[in-house]
Amino acid sequence: MTRHNPQATSDFPVIDTLAILGSGLIGASVLRASKARELFRRSVVWDIRAENRDFCVSSGWADVATDDLAEAVREADLVVIATPADTVGDLAERIAKHLKPGALVTDAASTKGHIARVAHAAMPEGRHFVAAHPMAGSEKNGPSAAKEDLFEGRACFITPLSGRTDDNAVAAVSGFWKSLGANIVEVSPDDHDEIVAHISHLPHVAAVALAGMLARKPDLWRDCAGGGLRDTTRIAGSDPKLWKTILEQNRDEVLRALRAYQEELHGLERALANRDWFEVQAILERGRAYREQFRQIP
Amino acid sequence: MTRHNPQATSDFPVIDTLAILGSGLIGASVLRASKARELFRRSVVWDIRAENRDFCVSSGWADVATDDLAEAVREADLVVIATPADTVGDLAERIAKHLKPGALVTDAASTKGHIARVAHAAMPEGRHFVAAHPMAGSEKNGPSAAKEDLFEGRACFITPLSGRTDDNAVAAVSGFWKSLGANIVEVSPDDHDEIVAHISHLPHVAAVALAGMLARKPDLWRDCAGGGLRDTTRIAGSDPKLWKTILEQNRDEVLRALRAYQEELHGLERALANRDWFEVQAILERGRAYREQFRQIP
Repeated sequence: MTRHNPQATSDFPVIDTLAILGSGLIGASVLRASKARELFRRSVVWDIRAENRDFCVSSGWADVATDDLAEAVREADLVVIATPADTVGDLAERIAKHLKPGALVTDAASTKGHIARVAHAAMPEGRHFVAAHPMAGSEKNGPSAAKEDLFEGRACFITPLSGRTDDNAVAAVSGFWKSLGANIVEVSPDDHDEIVAHISHLPHVAAVALAGMLARKPDLWRDCAGGGLRDTTRIAGSDPKLWKTILEQNRDEVLRALRAYQEELHGLERALANRDWFEVQAILERGRAYREQFRQIP
Repeated sequence: MTRHNPQATSDFPVIDTLAILGSGLIGASVLRASKARELFRRSVVWDIRAENRDFCVSSGWADVATDDLAEAVREADLVVIATPADTVGDLAERIAKHLKPGALVTDAASTKGHIARVAHAAMPEGRHFVAAHPMAGSEKNGPSAAKEDLFEGRACFITPLSGRTDDNAVAAVSGFWKSLGANIVEVSPDDHDEIVAHISHLPHVAAVALAGMLARKPDLWRDCAGGGLRDTTRIAGSDPKLWKTILEQNRDEVLRALRAYQEELHGLERALANRDWFEVQAILERGRAYREQFRQIP
């Protein structure tokens, strides 16, 4: 595991108090990664689940855990909202009046258009919301699945509202995510939603549909599955409620990506139906070329 | 790594000579796994690629390597044809007259209907072909990727022709694959082709189409990919020629499976378009339930 690295953290000063709202896999990983890199002097976790609060304190990652939002954020220099996408805007509104002057707020949700606007509008003078989305996760849930290197080498979208989100706040919040090992990608909230609809939400939907179709077949078929089916459907094992929310928030872009995928499948179906083996091989070659261009993640 | 285990090999007697035709990932893994389990006294590899022959001999897995088919199979008690699906029938025909009495021949190709019939018909009196397909592989190629535990805990289809393939030969060849750690699943060649069209060929096609569609998008999108897209598209990195052949040999069943998948995607698209979040969540739940029922592989 990575320990404190002065170079990696040079973009982000050590702060007094970090508050994490929601200590699931992502929130607890942010906490754990920040602690390993000594980015704060004191940490507070807010969670409505007592077992999550207990876990974060007993593991030594959090100094305090509470189910009182005002208490959680009152002294925070940086608040990370790591709750499901449909709750981030609401939480930003609820914490707004308790934030101290200069406080920064960021999040980690998979959709940005709605959240960036609502949370920005909720902030009082001198407090700043900078929307973020680290491309890291797992089909596992809860703080016990947290990893201190979860964000290492991963992309992290930072999605300021053009001309409205404070530049210094954007730089500071970017520095925070960068300190956790992420590669910062700054795009508009709407561009973000289009990109992740394709590279994250569509793969999810494709995996779920594959699993759902095969669920109707005899059990023996599933028991014969090799590594291909296992990998291809892994993310179908993720939390359905969480993903319903993501698809709800990014419906239009997901529909667009899904239709483009259906077009591609239809082209492959047509090539097979026509016994156009030259075209089939060209499609296979294009898929491999794409796959080979993936950058390595440490 | 598993070493020789008397219990695991009790179904298959030690033979004098094992011949492997084609020393790619699968052929070399069969060789390596058989050697680790001491299933033969002598092994011969046939391959048209000099570098593969050299690799198998210098690694100590093969006693002899040759590009002469007659020489390769002449003394073999068991021949494993581990070449691409479109060449197995032809190789079975070419080796037939060189096989000694009592010789057994099996294969490892991903399609079975055509191969099982052609190879069965090619065998002279007293020599037996028993078609097989271990559900193991990788997007990697060549003997250097071979693993001695590749078949451990994996399903291996054995697909005799009903009333035609010799029962003793079926038992012996099943015993061989079982000795490599595989779970034997005996089905007809046509049932096999229907099953793998769904659990192997369709996931491949789904991954390739996803990769192919995303290949048209900006490079930045790919560089932001998280674990979901990586896993979902991993198998798109496989050898396009090999897969063109598999799709060619199993075209009808793959088309059927692909159309069922398209139906499923269309149902999901419709639910999103209608904002039917109850249905979206039901589809997500079904996908997760399927994924959770996968048996563990050691």
